[in-house]
Formats: sequence, structure tokens, C-alpha cells
Amino acid sequence: MELLVVFDSPSNMTSSLSLRHVAVVGATGAVGKEMINCLYRLGYPFDSLFLFASEKSKGTNIETPDGSTLTVSEFSVDEIVRSKCRIVLLAVSGTFSEQFSPALVQAGCIVIDNSSAFRYMETVPLVVPSLNGLVLKKDELSGGKIIANPNCTSAISAMVLFPLHMKFGGIKRLIASTYQAASGAGEPGMAELSSAIAAHASGTPFTPTVFSHNLCSNVIPCIDTVQPNGYTKEEMKLVWETQKIFNNKEIEISCTAVRVPTMRAHCISASIEFNQPVSVDQVREILHQSPGVVVVDNPGEKIYPVPTQASGKDDVFVGRIRQNLIFKKHGIDVFICGDQLLRGAALNAVEIAVLVNKILAE
Amino acid sequence: MELLVVFDSPSNMTSSLSLRHVAVVGATGAVGKEMINCLYRLGYPFDSLFLFASEKSKGTNIETPDGSTLTVSEFSVDEIVRSKCRIVLLAVSGTFSEQFSPALVQAGCIVIDNSSAFRYMETVPLVVPSLNGLVLKKDELSGGKIIANPNCTSAISAMVLFPLHMKFGGIKRLIASTYQAASGAGEPGMAELSSAIAAHASGTPFTPTVFSHNLCSNVIPCIDTVQPNGYTKEEMKLVWETQKIFNNKEIEISCTAVRVPTMRAHCISASIEFNQPVSVDQVREILHQSPGVVVVDNPGEKIYPVPTQASGKDDVFVGRIRQNLIFKKHGIDVFICGDQLLRGAALNAVEIAVLVNKILAE
Repeated sequence: MELLVVFDSPSNMTSSLSLRHVAVVGATGAVGKEMINCLYRLGYPFDSLFLFASEKSKGTNIETPDGSTLTVSEFSVDEIVRSKCRIVLLAVSGTFSEQFSPALVQAGCIVIDNSSAFRYMETVPLVVPSLNGLVLKKDELSGGKIIANPNCTSAISAMVLFPLHMKFGGIKRLIASTYQAASGAGEPGMAELSSAIAAHASGTPFTPTVFSHNLCSNVIPCIDTVQPNGYTKEEMKLVWETQKIFNNKEIEISCTAVRVPTMRAHCISASIEFNQPVSVDQVREILHQSPGVVVVDNPGEKIYPVPTQASGKDDVFVGRIRQNLIFKKHGIDVFICGDQLLRGAALNAVEIAVLVNKILAE
Repeated sequence: MELLVVFDSPSNMTSSLSLRHVAVVGATGAVGKEMINCLYRLGYPFDSLFLFASEKSKGTNIETPDGSTLTVSEFSVDEIVRSKCRIVLLAVSGTFSEQFSPALVQAGCIVIDNSSAFRYMETVPLVVPSLNGLVLKKDELSGGKIIANPNCTSAISAMVLFPLHMKFGGIKRLIASTYQAASGAGEPGMAELSSAIAAHASGTPFTPTVFSHNLCSNVIPCIDTVQPNGYTKEEMKLVWETQKIFNNKEIEISCTAVRVPTMRAHCISASIEFNQPVSVDQVREILHQSPGVVVVDNPGEKIYPVPTQASGKDDVFVGRIRQNLIFKKHGIDVFICGDQLLRGAALNAVEIAVLVNKILAE
């Protein structure tokens, strides 16, 4: 892949670009729309926001949170450069990113990529800003650069796992089973679940095209392609990305990723063994103090994380905190829930943009 | 609990009762209805079938698979004895079972109890017939007796775990996360999920009364009451019952039990560490040979267990068989799915009745 040599470009390429010009590519999709919202909500200091998508979405008008209307343009690298966008948020497929990110980098853009295309390359930082934002160095951001946004499940679970990892001598082992929402398959996934629910309610037959089975009243224990080891790519992402974000290849991780009929919040049931002893009270205290995490843990009073309550929220919710019955004093079980489109994608990407802007403005 | 001393009654009490007279108590509920079907389908050799329920269901007519109609009577111990029923299948609450089972036993009945009321008492056998049916001894069945039917999740997962436990030197550790259907809360649970789906489709607000939250487009990580150790009773049932059915208190088990919006098939994501080495091929072969288990494991071709396909089936389905990435050569991950009302309740109970009849007829 000769394209991959051009991940960093000389800083003289950036002279015509501006950090105050921002592009969202894939602006008509579920993640792209949330990126636009987050750019406004987090107050990214842009002068101009440019929206791009494929040819078929060209001309679509999108209302922004400040009441103005932006028109979507057809994507091309030239168009991005002409728009002087230094910050390019990609809410596109891995294939698309692989095809165009190198040229964007060569043009001097900082590409914040929500796809998995470059996540596992050593030279590409994989960032959850509040956890490992320090991996972004000013001198490495002087030219073009790809910065990878983690997979939804990795980003959501990391918000809870990372502070515990830092406190209790590191995570030794993590066993996770997931409950992943339709939004993981984008706007088409959410639309298909809505249609499937409507068909179920009216007793009409329904043939799925996005998911392998009718997702209404069902769960599907397979997301993404199957790897040679029998795990799906979605499952291995949690392994690879947790190790990379935590900068620790020693953490042993096994995951089962399952699609469930929820709309846009993912859940993770996690059993964790730490290198040092841990107690439920300590975990609750650490997580209470962790930014972006809300402890909802009083099951006797019906208080625990549920997808409908986490949807649309920036925070990640955690509850059902218990001493693991196998790992005993070294182990904890938790149930984690977070909005897939926000912490799992758009919010995290925009937080990266905010951080990049801050680093370069300093 | 002085009532508990009467679990076994002298065999002279049984003289007026007949194994060919069978009672289903709770006959109008989801499990009770399936028990009636299973009695016919499995060919239990009854001459007379008597249906009982609470006063409010008295007089309800139920069509049986052979086309006849049976009328539900109000339950009383006297009525059971008058009907000469030696076999009494209970599809009732734990409280009801606690109240009436001792008197039924004293009257000489063999009570096959689907509730958890007596499951954990040492003198009460907990039975999945094809796995540990040998715990039922002819001499212990000569009088009245309570036989406990396992919890749905325990029975379904045991069908897959037990043959592996026997083959690979015993299960050392089991970590499970469940995906449990609405039917676990009986007919009212299923009805509430249907109503919630209809309300979602029509955009109507919905207030749940059976579940703690609207189950449509949601998951609820808490089933049954919370125990002092922070685990729910539903989670601890898997621990207690697996150890009891497998007759091995050494097996370490940790579980997270989650309600999902499916109708009547439960799933279990299980990570298992064995005392001896194990391979994916060996597991597949053992499970292929295990009665009541169907291996559906070709995820590349979209073949894996899903609730909509397991619903209404006697068999338990297993797939996503992988070498666990943490326990390595000693570990396996599987995804299990089975009908909650059948293997998880009614089918298993009727199989116990069939076995009891066979033992006593020998």
C-alpha cells in the first residue's frame, strides 16, 4: 500500500488551509449529522463549515443548530483544499477513507477518521481525548495527519475502563459481551429497525436488507466480517483498540459482539480482572470522579444504565458494579451504556478536533 | 419452615392416586399452556389430564392438541387428590409453590415445580432429564416428592455446557452474559412487549407495568431481586443451579442477566475455562453428538443461533464457537440460544414427568 507512506506531509502544505475551516464528509449520514451538531455544541471555533457527501446527496440542505442552512457539496480532495479546510472529519466507510485520506494528508489536512481504515497503524494515533489526548504532539500536527477515532464499543467502554486501569495496577483480563444498537449500521440500520418494528406491530412480513435477520424481537450474534480466529472484526476491534488506547499490549481481552434491537445506545457487560485488589466502593468512587462518566447503580431502586436513557447523552453510564465471583478481590463486573453516535463516534471525533485546535493554537 | 419436613411422604398415601392422572397447575399461563402441549407431543401416557388455575381463570376452556376442550378448575389440594393426580406440574409462582407443594407431597403427589421455591434444598432433586436424570431413584419416588425444574437460563445453557464439562475434565470457570426474552416474565411479559412494540410503531407513549422500563428498543440489565452480594437472584440461579445439576460446587461462575426485547427465546454468551485442553473442533464434534443440541456455526454464511429461529423449537442451538482469547487452549466462547418456554420450562418439566413414569413403571 504505497499510499500509506504519506501519512505525514510537510507543514508548508498547510499554509493555504485554516483551522477555522472545517469539513464534515459524510454529512448526510447518522454520524455526520451528529458531528455537525457537536461542532456547534462544543463551540469549535470555525469561521466556515463545509459539508460533503457522495454525488447522490449533493444539494441536500441541512439545518444547523444556529438556524442557518448549509448545502451539501459532492466530495473531492480538490474541493476540500479549495475550501481551505485544515480539519476534515470523516464519517465515511473504511474503503472511502483508504482511498482519499492519504491525498487529504498530502494536501496538509488533519483528517479525523471515524472509519477503521487506519486505526491499527503504528503511526496513526487512536484517541479518546480525555483519556489519551497526550498522544497528540504539536510537532506531529504541523503538517497533514490522520487521527483515528475509535470504534463505538471501544470508545464507550474505555471511558469506564481507563480510569480503573490507571487506579488498580492495570487491567489484566477483560471479558466483554455487547448489546449493540442499530445505529452501528448507520442511518440505514436505524431505518431498518424502525421499519421492522412497524411491520411487527402490523403483522406484516419483513425482509431485512441491512441486517442478516429481522432485528425486531431478535438478537444477532455477529457484527462485521469473521476473522481467521473465528472472532468477528467488531470483536477484535475491542481487543486491538483497547490495547492501543491504553498503550498496553499485555491486557488480555475476549469479546462477543451482539446486535440487539435498540436504536442508538450500545451496552457492554464487562468482567474485569485487575493486577491489584479492587473493591466495589473504590470503583464507584473512581467512576464518580471520572469526567464523562455517570454512575447509575442502585438496582434495588431500578437504577441502572439502559439504552433509552443513554440515547442522546454525551456521558457514558455505568452500573451493576459487583465484585466478580471468579476473580474475587481482583475482579469487578460492570454494565456500561453509551450513545453510539455521540461518545461512540461524533462527539469523540469533534472532541479530537477541539483538542487539535487547542494544541496548535497554543 | 415446618412445612419443609414433609417433602417425602409414605408410599401408602399414593394408593388412591394414579400416574395416569396428571394435573397442570397454572394452566392458563405461558408455561402452563406449553406444558399441556408437551404432554401430548411427548406422548405422556395419561388417561386424564386436569387443568387448574386461580379462581379468576376458573371455567376457562383450553383446546388441547388432540382437538378436545378441557375446562380449567380452581386449584385446591383436595381437588387434586379427588382427581387422583399423582403427577402435578406446577407452573406457578414460588410463593404459591411454597404454600401448597408440601400438602401435595403429603397427599402422595409427585410435584414437578417450575418455580425456584425448593430448587436449592438438598433433598430436592434439580433435573434436566437427559443430563442428570439418574438422580431420580425409584425408591425415593415411591411416595410424594418435589422435583424441581431448573431456571430457564440454567436449563438452556446446561444442555450445551454439560457434555463439554464431562469431556474436558470439568468446567473450571464460566463467565456468562444473558439476552433474556420477555417470556421470562410469563404471558404478561410477552403481552407487554407486544404492546410496547405497537406503541413504538404508532408513536404512542407507553408506560410499562411488568418491566421496569419500556422494553421496546431497550435492554434492562436487572432481572429479579438484588442479593446482598450485588448480583440479582436471576444471576445467582445460574451459579447455584449449574453447580447443583453438574453436582460440582467447584465450578466458578459469574453471570450478568439482561432482559432484551425478544419474545420467547433466551441467549447466553458464555466464556468457559476447562480443566483440560479443548479445541473448537472437539467442541463442535461433542455438541454435534449431544441430544437436544443443534450446532449452527458458520458465521461467514450468516449461520449462528438467533432467537426468532429458536422460538418454538425443543432443541438448544449453539454457535460462534471460538477458542477464548484469554483462557487460550483451555477456553472456549460459545453463543447459546433456546426457547425459554420449552427447554427453559415446560418441555423440561414434562420430560421429568415422562422419566418419573418410566422409572416407576419399570
